[in-house]
Amino acid sequence: MNDILIIGIGAGDPDYLTTQAIKALNRADVFFILDKGEAKDKLIALRRLILDRYIAPGRQYRVLEATNPERERDVSNYDASIDSLNRDKQVVFEQLLGQLQEGETGAFLVWGDPSLYDSTIRILDGVIAGGRPLAYEVIPGITSVQALTARHRIPLNQIGRAVQITTGRRLREGWPQGVDSVVVMLDAQDSYRQVIDEDLHIYWGAYVGTPDEILIAGKLVEVAEQIATTRAAAREANGWIMDSYLLRRGGREA
Amino acid sequence: MNDILIIGIGAGDPDYLTTQAIKALNRADVFFILDKGEAKDKLIALRRLILDRYIAPGRQYRVLEATNPERERDVSNYDASIDSLNRDKQVVFEQLLGQLQEGETGAFLVWGDPSLYDSTIRILDGVIAGGRPLAYEVIPGITSVQALTARHRIPLNQIGRAVQITTGRRLREGWPQGVDSVVVMLDAQDSYRQVIDEDLHIYWGAYVGTPDEILIAGKLVEVAEQIATTRAAAREANGWIMDSYLLRRGGREA
Ligand SMILES: C[S@@+](CC[C@H](N)C(=O)[O-])C[C@H]1O[C@@H](n2cnc3c(N)ncnc32)[C@H](O)[C@@H]1O
Ligand SMILES: C[S@@+](CC[C@H](N)C(=O)[O-])C[C@H]1O[C@@H](n2cnc3c(N)ncnc32)[C@H](O)[C@@H]1O
Repeated sequence: MNDILIIGIGAGDPDYLTTQAIKALNRADVFFILDKGEAKDKLIALRRLILDRYIAPGRQYRVLEATNPERERDVSNYDASIDSLNRDKQVVFEQLLGQLQEGETGAFLVWGDPSLYDSTIRILDGVIAGGRPLAYEVIPGITSVQALTARHRIPLNQIGRAVQITTGRRLREGWPQGVDSVVVMLDAQDSYRQVIDEDLHIYWGAYVGTPDEILIAGKLVEVAEQIATTRAAAREANGWIMDSYLLRRGGREA
Repeated sequence: MNDILIIGIGAGDPDYLTTQAIKALNRADVFFILDKGEAKDKLIALRRLILDRYIAPGRQYRVLEATNPERERDVSNYDASIDSLNRDKQVVFEQLLGQLQEGETGAFLVWGDPSLYDSTIRILDGVIAGGRPLAYEVIPGITSVQALTARHRIPLNQIGRAVQITTGRRLREGWPQGVDSVVVMLDAQDSYRQVIDEDLHIYWGAYVGTPDEILIAGKLVEVAEQIATTRAAAREANGWIMDSYLLRRGGREA
């Protein structure tokens, strides 16, 4: 039996780490680092920096790296492709967890918060359902949503209103019903261009909380092209991009 | 001209403070603490504990307390009552800010994250629009939403799906369209009882992240009464309650 810590490390700035996360880092014997696509070098470097900065000097730990299986792009059934991806990931997790010795505590460092568009919890549940006894704990982290609103210095919701958090894919199906504030994540296709109307404001951010941060805000009709151009250039320059945005309809706050 | 820090302190556990928040605490000369209704003693005590714990020994600071005006209950127009409340709060803020000396940095400690159902950003924008020159910065914090999902060890969203964050008042108007995961905050009336159906799961938490934490999860039809009873008893025992919940429809994750 092993204890596992799923530690949210915040979505960019190493200063986003909480005291609770720092304490958790100092309880782990083994860190599992999964690399990921184009961004992997930078994101792995950030995780290494977090370990170096926050783990007490003299404390021993091992780092195990593995390659995270990637989703097949452009498949027709998105949910099914994610399901099959998660099964592949489960195999990788099982291999990693198999390297823990009796009584050792393992840790996964999760970008942002482990609850938001992340599969670590689901995969560990799958591992447990598959028969491996594990106890795990989840440590919350600052999401990219909060990083975005903090850097733009805006409320997430309008007074007493609801907020929706969704994906680029879903936004392309149309403006979500019943909400005037929508956060869009996982958007590889500039989907904001498909909902442009006079009444919308956008607060866009890329690499928020990192030294490469870019922020653009304004009326969507006025800044959509600037965002698309900036986004394409940044993606080209860095080889990858992570960006998200809040769309706000009407209302008293711009 | 003064600098103001709006610091998210997380929604319960003092260990939710980020390194960025701790650094910000150590830049402030004056802390504004606004008390609030029934919970005020406990919440003010927590803020004092945070200052004691995280501010470097020997660093000088002042604490200014004020009473936060409260919303009139049971008024018919909710938005208008919030507007008028925020105007009253702005007067209180202006009095507090008027006590800053030239060059001093002031700080507001905000429960959870400053973007989520909190008026500090809006009111400071109002103060600036009213003519007082201020520069302010927002430091994100762990929201009660992340505290809730971490303690229940669940994802916020289903794979590739959207999530809505809303209020008890809005949930009573019916299940939000187009989403299968709904987080409900600010619910004084057990509104989950009005959407009970066979297909819903609830993950409920009160005082999450504090020593008084209570968690209940299960099929809504099966646990709704238990939550209502537990909630009423806790409210009675403590004199106040802060609780929230995630409702999830169908899906592969329970
Ligand atoms: C797989 S999700 C993980 C989200 C993460 N768990 C969180 O709490 O923010 C990745 C998406 O998060 C958003 N994202 C993550 N970090 C970001 C950052 N620093 N700036 C802007 N967007 C970011 C992007 O929309 C990206 O496509
Ligand atoms: C005025 S809102 C402030 C939210 C805060 N800014 C945040 O980021 O969580 C207060 C509501 O947040 C929720 N809440 C705050 N702290 C909580 C906690 N520790 N446990 C459960 N719910 C909490 C409750 O729904 C409460 O009615």
